[in-house]
Amino acid sequence: MKIVLPDGSKKTLEAGATVADVAASIGAGLARAALGGKINGAFADLDTPVADGATVEIITAKSPEALGIMRHSAAHVMAEAVQELYPGTQIGFGPQTEDGFFYDFALPEGVSISPDDFAAIEEKMAEIVKRDEPFVREVVSRDGAKAIFADQRLKAEHIDDLPADEEIVIRRHGNFVDLCSGPHMPSAGKIGPFKLMKTAGAYWKGDSDNEMLTRIYGTAFFNKKDLEEYLHNLAEAEKRDHRKLGRELGIYMMEPMAGVGLPLYLPKGARVIRTLQEWLRRDLYERGYEEVITPHIYNADVWKTSGHYGFYHENMYFFQINEGTDEEPRYSEYGVKPMNCPGHVIIYKNELHSYRDLPLRLFEFGTVYRHEMSGVVHGLLRARGFTQDDAHIFCTKDQVVDEVVAILELVDHIMDTFGFTYEAEISTRPDKSIGTDEMWDHATESLKQACARRGLAYEINEGDGAFYGPKIDIKVKDAIGRTWQCSTVQIDFNMPMRFGLTYRTEDNTEETPWMLHRAIFGSIERFLGILIEHYAGALPLWLAPVQVAVIPIADRHKEAAAEFAGELKSVGGRVEIMDANEPMKVKIAKAQSQKIPYMVVLGDKEIEERVVSVRDRAEGDLGQWDRQKFIDVIRDAAI
Amino acid sequence: MKIVLPDGSKKTLEAGATVADVAASIGAGLARAALGGKINGAFADLDTPVADGATVEIITAKSPEALGIMRHSAAHVMAEAVQELYPGTQIGFGPQTEDGFFYDFALPEGVSISPDDFAAIEEKMAEIVKRDEPFVREVVSRDGAKAIFADQRLKAEHIDDLPADEEIVIRRHGNFVDLCSGPHMPSAGKIGPFKLMKTAGAYWKGDSDNEMLTRIYGTAFFNKKDLEEYLHNLAEAEKRDHRKLGRELGIYMMEPMAGVGLPLYLPKGARVIRTLQEWLRRDLYERGYEEVITPHIYNADVWKTSGHYGFYHENMYFFQINEGTDEEPRYSEYGVKPMNCPGHVIIYKNELHSYRDLPLRLFEFGTVYRHEMSGVVHGLLRARGFTQDDAHIFCTKDQVVDEVVAILELVDHIMDTFGFTYEAEISTRPDKSIGTDEMWDHATESLKQACARRGLAYEINEGDGAFYGPKIDIKVKDAIGRTWQCSTVQIDFNMPMRFGLTYRTEDNTEETPWMLHRAIFGSIERFLGILIEHYAGALPLWLAPVQVAVIPIADRHKEAAAEFAGELKSVGGRVEIMDANEPMKVKIAKAQSQKIPYMVVLGDKEIEERVVSVRDRAEGDLGQWDRQKFIDVIRDAAI
Repeated sequence: MKIVLPDGSKKTLEAGATVADVAASIGAGLARAALGGKINGAFADLDTPVADGATVEIITAKSPEALGIMRHSAAHVMAEAVQELYPGTQIGFGPQTEDGFFYDFALPEGVSISPDDFAAIEEKMAEIVKRDEPFVREVVSRDGAKAIFADQRLKAEHIDDLPADEEIVIRRHGNFVDLCSGPHMPSAGKIGPFKLMKTAGAYWKGDSDNEMLTRIYGTAFFNKKDLEEYLHNLAEAEKRDHRKLGRELGIYMMEPMAGVGLPLYLPKGARVIRTLQEWLRRDLYERGYEEVITPHIYNADVWKTSGHYGFYHENMYFFQINEGTDEEPRYSEYGVKPMNCPGHVIIYKNELHSYRDLPLRLFEFGTVYRHEMSGVVHGLLRARGFTQDDAHIFCTKDQVVDEVVAILELVDHIMDTFGFTYEAEISTRPDKSIGTDEMWDHATESLKQACARRGLAYEINEGDGAFYGPKIDIKVKDAIGRTWQCSTVQIDFNMPMRFGLTYRTEDNTEETPWMLHRAIFGSIERFLGILIEHYAGALPLWLAPVQVAVIPIADRHKEAAAEFAGELKSVGGRVEIMDANEPMKVKIAKAQSQKIPYMVVLGDKEIEERVVSVRDRAEGDLGQWDRQKFIDVIRDAAI
Repeated sequence: MKIVLPDGSKKTLEAGATVADVAASIGAGLARAALGGKINGAFADLDTPVADGATVEIITAKSPEALGIMRHSAAHVMAEAVQELYPGTQIGFGPQTEDGFFYDFALPEGVSISPDDFAAIEEKMAEIVKRDEPFVREVVSRDGAKAIFADQRLKAEHIDDLPADEEIVIRRHGNFVDLCSGPHMPSAGKIGPFKLMKTAGAYWKGDSDNEMLTRIYGTAFFNKKDLEEYLHNLAEAEKRDHRKLGRELGIYMMEPMAGVGLPLYLPKGARVIRTLQEWLRRDLYERGYEEVITPHIYNADVWKTSGHYGFYHENMYFFQINEGTDEEPRYSEYGVKPMNCPGHVIIYKNELHSYRDLPLRLFEFGTVYRHEMSGVVHGLLRARGFTQDDAHIFCTKDQVVDEVVAILELVDHIMDTFGFTYEAEISTRPDKSIGTDEMWDHATESLKQACARRGLAYEINEGDGAFYGPKIDIKVKDAIGRTWQCSTVQIDFNMPMRFGLTYRTEDNTEETPWMLHRAIFGSIERFLGILIEHYAGALPLWLAPVQVAVIPIADRHKEAAAEFAGELKSVGGRVEIMDANEPMKVKIAKAQSQKIPYMVVLGDKEIEERVVSVRDRAEGDLGQWDRQKFIDVIRDAAI
């Protein structure tokens, strides 16, 4: 029989050959490295027989799917260890996740598992891995399955929930067995270094009416270095958690009484936000944008016209306003804005436009409110209220490429300022969409051309565009390698049509303008959250809420400290004078923990010699500086 | 018999003496000037007999009530004229108003009155005034009244609506008669110069179920100069109307679909607002304020704690948020903020405070939404959404005076910047209020002391304070003499108590801080509206959305124009290049109508000599300036 390899080449094998045989037929090295395969795209164990004509791919540790498969096997091993250590444990589900794996357990009465027990479970897991037993796939009858899981009530219940015509596949490993169609490693010995991470409560099948199970999370990698890097980054991410740093650095607060997902920005947070805004504002003016300010609430007629009323209703907050009198009330529905576009479209429509006015670039720091479930809000990264650095560009069809190029240039300038690298993704026409093929082609081509002109590589997300047009998403990579979706450029065929926007062409005809939505930060507050994690709270000098801590050594130096602080302020510096009655060491430690870029110490010697002793939060003592030199550094950092 | 004069002195008169007799007994001049009187505070005609022991006051043209009385008589004269000109006219009500008077008419079928008819009516009125017939007061029986108004169906209907025990008073003048208890001039000859102003539709008795009447507005003054000044100011106010100028200058727009009282700020308006904010922000930092940013919506728990839920509910917009899941919804009520105080109080409460931290001055440019009836919204002056330049100061009892002095200093700085003079009013404890006498005394005394220290005269509005504390209101006077309530300083006993705010005193005890609310602009957008009217749209150089129109004479001067514009921008200038293919005169006219402070013209000569021809919007041609001199002017205007 013949099989096809992923590169299209063909191989002749004996009938009944397995995936392992295919690997061996290619080479002995591949046979050793083989962890499983794909037959016609579907995962298969090494011992699965291959049919004539099938396309067969061999999975090794280097395959993108391998890590997930290995982690899933590690999950089985963990469950096996738990069952050995805590006989009578009932197993739930145990999938791999993005970062590792978990398994849910109903533990025997009186038993609970905490991180204190992880060492014992890990030891048992290591023992099982060492045994190197195979993961054996078996197809069983429904009755057979019921018998096998007679003492596993959750599984027995799940078998009853399965559709009658579904093939029941189990996976055995030593004494452990679970309902599972795989794929898995050939044997446990192939599992790499692993670590249990944490426990959590989880409802059986995610339903709060069901019993609460104990979920144990773990992770595994193919080599120790990867595991260590992962654990390091995790610890780093925890240290950098913007919620923790946000509190410590006085950036923002949450107040349960005030509501879910609604941060309040403390003075230092407000300073950073206003600095970011003003910095971007000036840049946008330079780039030919015009600022507008629009209301936070609109009559529902606006949302009906824009389509949000129908398509985005559940993400919005609506209420009633009496447009009549107390005696004769007449109620209109209003909605809090989840997006700024309708306001900008209304402003566009306020005047007649000629092709000569285009492109028209309107921007706004617009605070929007969108419904998020209480369970998913997360500090500044996912809130119910946030401020978009939002802009809408109205232009002719021929101007689209230039405008997108200009936006990508701005993205580059901004991301570069913060030391972010980034990747682009272009999302194309989805099944459900409006607009002609010609419009979609022109729009998608324009986005590609703009990327090409900027020398920006992009991936294509086929069919992942909005219903109203294609888009470019920019994903930035932070200092510890995490990616964040920030900037977006979207072409919108819908809004200009719904609001009936027009402009007069050179030929004196009426045309519908093209409209681009774009945001660079995305949400300013979320971007601030990302910056805090990216910089581990140590915001760059120009953005730090306090740039300099001026520290007089003794009371007699206070006056000189105040005077120097005044000089720094007069060149735009943000300064804190630390003149409390505390030891120098304590003050330095406080300034360090506040991540203040510079500490400047003033004593007799410094005052006499008209110098300052400068300390950098990262580099430590920088010695004595001429005052003017330090003032110049602060002046240069002013936006 | 004896009567008492307003100064407390007594006069002996013969029994049966009238108000006119009292005037004559005081002097012949007063007798001639007398228009009516007040007996024990109630208005009375000159021929009304005075009872023994009564206090009698003589009303002349100089009395504050005189103008209203005269205008009411003018209204009767207008109605008389209309009835003479349009026989069969049915009369409605005809009171004096703040600015003049009106009368409502049901005109005979086929008749309508427009401003074109005013000359004829005014002529007829002049004729009636010349006749100088007396306004005669008569008390009549209900049946008598019905007979008198047999052919006046509106009056007949009104008589039926009057309470059975009400005395029915009519007023006759020539052939004209209306139900009216006065007061009136003794005779029509005393009516001063008058003018009819406009017509409007008005429902009989203000009820939209009733028929629509024709309302004619007019005004009258005691002398021609006053009338002319009034008409001049009216024309001036109309020219300065911020709604008209706001549209012409591209400051803001209203869109009916978007909702009532919700302005959208166009690029030029946004420029001015951001400039005002940034200008104030820097000043506030200098003055030791710290900026915060708080959400626009809060859980109703906040509004219940603050008391707004109970006391301000009808001015607020509330809605529901699902805090549960889609499967298990659990709704919480949220409200759009009408005030920023709760947010600032929550921020105060986020940390423990010591007396050393006080005063803590938190400020925010907080956009709030308050319900206003559709009928009363008015451009930027009364909107449903606006941004307060809001601050809350938390301090000790002993710091209150200093803090209020500092606020008054800031008020002075800001109002002086715009050339506003202003007056202060202190409002004291109302009947319904919280807090001890000691607190009210200290608070009110503190406000008075602060005014005294600033040398600021104030009036006392007895009992007009908020229930939670006394306040200072600042009323500014604009360029055409109108007054506007802008700044306010309020002491609040309520909020710190409701939220349980504390600080630790020097003696290590817990105390409730004192809290001041204060806003200087009040609402930034409203202040902008006032500024537009105050400056007739010609905002000062530093605030003008476009400061300079750079005008190249011919195409070959465009490059030099762009270069010069760039130089101006680099020193913070806001510049528009007018290089369209239009005659110079048209460009100048456009720049003038846009109230752009400077027009700068560049041609061969200017380029060669490195000068610019400068035109000032007010002073016209300023001749040729050295370029650097002009650049310096613009640099100096940067905030």
